[in-house]
Amino acid sequence: MEYPSKLLSEVVDEISKLPGIGKRTALRLALHLLKQPEEQSEALAQSVLKFRKEIKHCKICHNISDKEVCDICSDERRNHALICVVEDVRDVMAIESTGEYKGVYHVLGGKISPIEGVGPADLTIDKLIERIENYQIDEIIFALSATVDGDTTNFYLYRKISTLPNPPGISTIARGIAVGEELEYADEVTLVRSILNRVPFEKSIKQNR
Amino acid sequence: MEYPSKLLSEVVDEISKLPGIGKRTALRLALHLLKQPEEQSEALAQSVLKFRKEIKHCKICHNISDKEVCDICSDERRNHALICVVEDVRDVMAIESTGEYKGVYHVLGGKISPIEGVGPADLTIDKLIERIENYQIDEIIFALSATVDGDTTNFYLYRKISTLPNPPGISTIARGIAVGEELEYADEVTLVRSILNRVPFEKSIKQNR
Repeated sequence: MEYPSKLLSEVVDEISKLPGIGKRTALRLALHLLKQPEEQSEALAQSVLKFRKEIKHCKICHNISDKEVCDICSDERRNHALICVVEDVRDVMAIESTGEYKGVYHVLGGKISPIEGVGPADLTIDKLIERIENYQIDEIIFALSATVDGDTTNFYLYRKISTLPNPPGISTIARGIAVGEELEYADEVTLVRSILNRVPFEKSIKQNR
Repeated sequence: MEYPSKLLSEVVDEISKLPGIGKRTALRLALHLLKQPEEQSEALAQSVLKFRKEIKHCKICHNISDKEVCDICSDERRNHALICVVEDVRDVMAIESTGEYKGVYHVLGGKISPIEGVGPADLTIDKLIERIENYQIDEIIFALSATVDGDTTNFYLYRKISTLPNPPGISTIARGIAVGEELEYADEVTLVRSILNRVPFEKSIKQNR
């Protein structure tokens, strides 16, 4: 398509570099901005610039934060000997929204993925090992997504951590049938895992809410 | 959802003001920008600002343009007595990409829509009337979308234009079965129109390419 304006073509090019946004959607978004007050475009552009320039990562857990040390890592009421390893900030937000987890996190910043060219050195794995070596950690919970890349990362971390002197306990979040889900629609792998990792009934009753 | 950073929460708010983009998608886009080089966020923000601040509308046809008078309106090889009335720049781009239309355009900037609060004064209708009064226009082609709002706008324009002294001819683009489409899947309104507005066979042969 040929654009009647270089400015329009430039903004469409830039917007369509975002994942999942094609040229057509980018054009629609640009025309939308044109119909809104100039302040909205200004606020959007400034917030993108500010976000990209000023955002920090917590120097302990590497989650996104406005501070050197994030609110979770500086909260003394939390259990700092229990670390949940996640991929990115969205996972932290999901777990935090349950309000039930009282440990801390370690944000890897991705998963090991040979296909996407992400190696262990691209993630915060060394920092996790440092944390385990320098502080008294009782347990590490792996909470990566159950994909090939997630499993690869889990195994890599497991080998690294379990060969340390005095390694902490290592667990992984339970895979199983979601609460409220029908058995017949569950995939087989999940179904098998839910049977293998069955839970004493009396324990499960106490977890009902 | 609670964000671990004010900067993150601000950028998600701003991005999710765009149509069709929710908080979740906005968060995904923000995290994507964070993984890309800072230059990409910079280029995105600057192009949005520049686009919104510097974009012009052609003073004749009101299409988006970098100049006072757009390339189409200043092209002497085109037929300036034939005006195609469209809603926005996307329609101009669609018709231009056929390479077959040799007239000029008038971009309304929308359709009359009582529900969305868009009245005739919000569009460039007065400017179209001025063009017809001040220049020798032979024909006006309505090329608005075939919706209630499009029809309303067509009727409004028709009444305005046809009551002028020496009004130009007024036509509307053909509605019918798309080339390559099966009759059985066409909606009834379109099918009826395609029969009512049938074209002499010999004329249609000449249009085959």
